[in-house]
Amino acid sequence: MTKTPYKIYLNEDEMPKTWHNIKAVMKELPSPFIHPATLKPCSADELNQVFCSELVEQELNTTDEYIEIPEGIREFYKMYRPSPLVRAYCLERLLDTPAEIYYKFEGTNTSGSHKLNSAAAQVYYAQKQGLTSLTTETGAGQWGTALAMACAYYNIDLSVYMVKVSAEQKPYRKAVIETYGGKVIPSPSNTTAAGKKILAENPDTGGSLGCAISEAMEVAMQTDNCRYVLGSVLDHVLLHQSVIGEETKTACDKYDIQPDIIIGCAGGGSNYGGLIAPFIGDKINGTSNIEFIAVEPVSCPSLTRGKYAFDFGDTGQTTPLMKMYTLGSGFMPSPNHAGGLRYHGMSPIISKLYDDGYLSARAVEQTKVFDAATMFARCEGTLPAPESAHALQVAIEEALKCKETGEKKTILFGLTGTGYFDLSAYMSYNEGSMTDYVPTDEDLEKGFASLPKVEL
Amino acid sequence: MTKTPYKIYLNEDEMPKTWHNIKAVMKELPSPFIHPATLKPCSADELNQVFCSELVEQELNTTDEYIEIPEGIREFYKMYRPSPLVRAYCLERLLDTPAEIYYKFEGTNTSGSHKLNSAAAQVYYAQKQGLTSLTTETGAGQWGTALAMACAYYNIDLSVYMVKVSAEQKPYRKAVIETYGGKVIPSPSNTTAAGKKILAENPDTGGSLGCAISEAMEVAMQTDNCRYVLGSVLDHVLLHQSVIGEETKTACDKYDIQPDIIIGCAGGGSNYGGLIAPFIGDKINGTSNIEFIAVEPVSCPSLTRGKYAFDFGDTGQTTPLMKMYTLGSGFMPSPNHAGGLRYHGMSPIISKLYDDGYLSARAVEQTKVFDAATMFARCEGTLPAPESAHALQVAIEEALKCKETGEKKTILFGLTGTGYFDLSAYMSYNEGSMTDYVPTDEDLEKGFASLPKVEL
Repeated sequence: MTKTPYKIYLNEDEMPKTWHNIKAVMKELPSPFIHPATLKPCSADELNQVFCSELVEQELNTTDEYIEIPEGIREFYKMYRPSPLVRAYCLERLLDTPAEIYYKFEGTNTSGSHKLNSAAAQVYYAQKQGLTSLTTETGAGQWGTALAMACAYYNIDLSVYMVKVSAEQKPYRKAVIETYGGKVIPSPSNTTAAGKKILAENPDTGGSLGCAISEAMEVAMQTDNCRYVLGSVLDHVLLHQSVIGEETKTACDKYDIQPDIIIGCAGGGSNYGGLIAPFIGDKINGTSNIEFIAVEPVSCPSLTRGKYAFDFGDTGQTTPLMKMYTLGSGFMPSPNHAGGLRYHGMSPIISKLYDDGYLSARAVEQTKVFDAATMFARCEGTLPAPESAHALQVAIEEALKCKETGEKKTILFGLTGTGYFDLSAYMSYNEGSMTDYVPTDEDLEKGFASLPKVEL
Repeated sequence: MTKTPYKIYLNEDEMPKTWHNIKAVMKELPSPFIHPATLKPCSADELNQVFCSELVEQELNTTDEYIEIPEGIREFYKMYRPSPLVRAYCLERLLDTPAEIYYKFEGTNTSGSHKLNSAAAQVYYAQKQGLTSLTTETGAGQWGTALAMACAYYNIDLSVYMVKVSAEQKPYRKAVIETYGGKVIPSPSNTTAAGKKILAENPDTGGSLGCAISEAMEVAMQTDNCRYVLGSVLDHVLLHQSVIGEETKTACDKYDIQPDIIIGCAGGGSNYGGLIAPFIGDKINGTSNIEFIAVEPVSCPSLTRGKYAFDFGDTGQTTPLMKMYTLGSGFMPSPNHAGGLRYHGMSPIISKLYDDGYLSARAVEQTKVFDAATMFARCEGTLPAPESAHALQVAIEEALKCKETGEKKTILFGLTGTGYFDLSAYMSYNEGSMTDYVPTDEDLEKGFASLPKVEL
């Protein structure tokens, strides 16, 4: 048999023409969004006030397994996709494992991550609906960058509410967003009532993601032809990210690669949901035995130590309630946690699949994650994003198990992005000043105390 | 006819197995290196004291048109190559030009540029020769990063003398090099006689590339099993970069793409030399009419305003003399010049081809370069390195000429890297504070005054 190439790139005519809707293959569906005032499921009309209507349709679609990717989005995808499926030959050699290791690498576009897959779709639909502007929030800046790229392409105005302390600490992220024509507003700001209120109470605050979300949503609701967009957690975001899984499946089929384990990092859950979309159906219907592992930081362990409960999506407690694994919207990981995956909750789809036992979860410490990232960079060349290196760390753990048992498993993981904008974290790792943080049970109880008291 | 895909990736078995030696197809050769003390051509023995012996052989090889890429380097190349040949459909649409525009994109690896192509080769040969460590200098940091990646892979120690002011202004570049295990020494340093001397005279100096070269060379000469490596200008570096051109040629032949114009930015000249290597031979022997354009900044115009003369390669005047287009090793572009291409001279091969009329040169202003870079980022997605955007700017000029004349030319340019580490320059452009610098004739005369007074 021919040796698998280092990198598998699909031809343009092999690229997916449809997204894969996980909900259509689930035996039981996640609970619908609940309106916090009425405690009734949110209607499409209610969601339409905040989101583009086509995205709301996708959010509520539980029946169509395949949803067409419009030509206008496929043209955008062709600029930076297909992403490569890479055989990690050098890592295999270094670990001296009989396992085969593959990773799907989403970091070759300028935004540096998979976020662009959903940004492109969301902005395309906004343009189609005749909207002229969008708002969003960004913390680390990956989502803001991806959205700015898509808005530049589709000619839509963009306002990014960027957590003030991030905007100050990461001027280069701000510069990229501005190069693509996006407007960056450090949050809290004087441009919204929510921002003004917080500034009046605490003029020196560095801001928070919760506040930035409130500001972005307020502007979207009060501006004509404007909507708010979100980069993870929601079902339609997972749907768009299924382009990752669809490409992976086609590449695997083409080269007769049959994964035994599929691993991904999970913050909000969208990249992992997208990666597993074409594989999980057979697990659910009992025809496949693939092991699915979602990886999260020990410092923000929503799946491994959270509760499966209705919770708000934001710390400001303004969104509909979603049933998900959560640490409570009031939970904040320690500031010494460097690399992403800081969200208190988890995608309702991933949460449900986990609760139903179709996938497992593992929490890893950040110093181990940076050990893995550095080892990977040195042998495979690519500098991983800290988020992505969570998945890498578990892939290494599994490959080393194979070394012990002699099993020749096929391990596939998602390498969602590059670490170019995370170098301050690499610096603290290189200097030996990086530490680990494991929340105590008391820390978690404080977060759980913020869960809404609802009876449903 | 089928539409050309957005991105052409060669299959692994189509990747080049040989480099392309331009000198073997030149009618007249560039002058050999001259020893500044004896004014005689440098012998292989003399060069072997500084460089790996296999690299010296390649440097002096004027007869073999194809030189095999060793299996050990081809394995490294497979980790990050082939690089895509991209059809710039979106740019074509935006410019409304009948021209077809293609670019060969070298920015998808972690070093962010083409530099890795020669770093891999140079470190491989060092390892093969039994060397245990290498030294080099770096200014902006691209070369240092590429070399650190290659040294991590081939397990060779690396000391990078980084211009002190760069090391301070670009802590993230330093962090990447250190993540790959390279040692970064801000220059001038106390580790060398050259550094100590400069520090004694001027304790507060921010350093210079000339000083960093002197320090790196001193350490290489005085350390067992150690050599100095250089990232551009030299013939063997152009040879390694011909992997860019070879891939491009194969992709063009596969899709019946016949370039009318081939454009590249030229600082030291290695990427452009590599890109044109498989195309220039037919121009020299009169069977092709391709127009070749090397692009440089108006602020450092070695081809368009320099002299064709023997000059030192470094500002410290320690290297052999090379006949090249040069502004004099004492020439320093204004500090307001942001993006690379600051070298006072030009590759002897490119200089000779230019002097013989096989290629032309054009100088562009940096604000125009950033106009082009921003336009490109917004429509094609990728954020270009400022260096690469010099070539882009001329590609746009040529495409707009086609719009005027109605000619359907095929324009190919090299996009050598990404702008992730150049965001301070993008910031000053975004803020409107970027200016242009055109050296006066007097400025140039000062540089020419540093040319060595040799009669050959």
